[in-house]
Amino acid sequence: MTTTEQPVLLAAVSLLSALLMGFQARRVGWSRMKHKIMPPAVTGPPEFERTFRAHQNGVEFFPTFQVVLWTCGLFGNEALAALGGLVYIAGREMYFTGYAKSARGRLPGFYLTICALLAMALTAATGIILSLLDKYLNIQIFSRSI
Amino acid sequence: MTTTEQPVLLAAVSLLSALLMGFQARRVGWSRMKHKIMPPAVTGPPEFERTFRAHQNGVEFFPTFQVVLWTCGLFGNEALAALGGLVYIAGREMYFTGYAKSARGRLPGFYLTICALLAMALTAATGIILSLLDKYLNIQIFSRSI
Amino acid sequence: MTTTEQPVLLAAVSLLSALLMGFQARRVGWSRMKHKIMPPAVTGPPEFERTFRAHQNGVEFFPTFQVVLWTCGLFGNEALAALGGLVYIAGREMYFTGYAKSARGRLPGFYLTICALLAMALTAATGIILSLLDKYLNIQIFSRSI
Repeated sequence: MTTTEQPVLLAAVSLLSALLMGFQARRVGWSRMKHKIMPPAVTGPPEFERTFRAHQNGVEFFPTFQVVLWTCGLFGNEALAALGGLVYIAGREMYFTGYAKSARGRLPGFYLTICALLAMALTAATGIILSLLDKYLNIQIFSRSI
Repeated sequence: MTTTEQPVLLAAVSLLSALLMGFQARRVGWSRMKHKIMPPAVTGPPEFERTFRAHQNGVEFFPTFQVVLWTCGLFGNEALAALGGLVYIAGREMYFTGYAKSARGRLPGFYLTICALLAMALTAATGIILSLLDKYLNIQIFSRSI
Repeated sequence: MTTTEQPVLLAAVSLLSALLMGFQARRVGWSRMKHKIMPPAVTGPPEFERTFRAHQNGVEFFPTFQVVLWTCGLFGNEALAALGGLVYIAGREMYFTGYAKSARGRLPGFYLTICALLAMALTAATGIILSLLDKYLNIQIFSRSI
């Protein structure tokens, strides 16, 4: 594959989301220092526990997000997937900062991540089904020759 | 890479497993509502804690599963990897529903996921070793010209 | 893509890291048996809690590591990424065995994983930016025709 055929938009968004996860992990470390919660403890004042759980929730969703981002980009549309990925990243950061302040504060960012995930998953599923039909049943629903 | 060269079976199984993870996360949310366990709390009645841990275990294994699935499919055999992935997904769902009922109930699904992972990992390792020998030492153990 | 064009070094390191995660999960199971901590419990003697958290930390970083490894290898340099990945794997194992012994024991391995991640992320980011400039703005900073 030549350089210009590589899905560089997907790679850029994927790397950006990985850097955000690293930065959120760092901020859990800062919260540990601020509240003097030494590992392996994971309980403490509510603010620490919310920050800890905000990161954990990001960790739980991160691999699912990667699968949805890449299948959407490779079997649907790369630009659309990159856009969905950026919305997800914004929502994930809103979730983290909101949750650190209050339990209710996590909700706007959470809904934004869910919307982005569902839109990308739907696009990915459509692209994969069309590709399965084309490859294994030789059915082209959308003619590519137009 | 043209459409028909893309590993669409792998993508289909990968996306399906991501959707299952999302659905299991949703069911942890429903269990929170049923038992009135508000975030960031992660402790409560045994049934809630089992459901929570069932999802966490899925989260822990999910990225490992993705690596094994894709390396098995790209360096071993795509159809075999897709089949192993479907067995893993079935085992993962048995694990979740079984664990929600009782701690012992998680075991049948757990063993099924381990068998699928080991079979895929062995296929992947074999394919990768053959590919390393071919690419860097120019040794072809199985002649491809037959 | 022909066999020799596939990024088999990346696949080898990626699969190796996945096997390490599986082996660390197995050792958490052994620690459960040793200390008689039955699922879904995740609390117990300090040694068990440190072992449990050592694995959890590996789980948290694993998907981020995969993204950084593959983007570094595909958009930067494959051999460099594979080397960075091996350093990460060594650090991750030092972290696990060190943390199981004492909370301070996790630090040397931790710093090693962070160094490996930062080096790979920097290489990946550089490669992706050059690739974006090339593909969308037709700017080649390093002429490839030399």
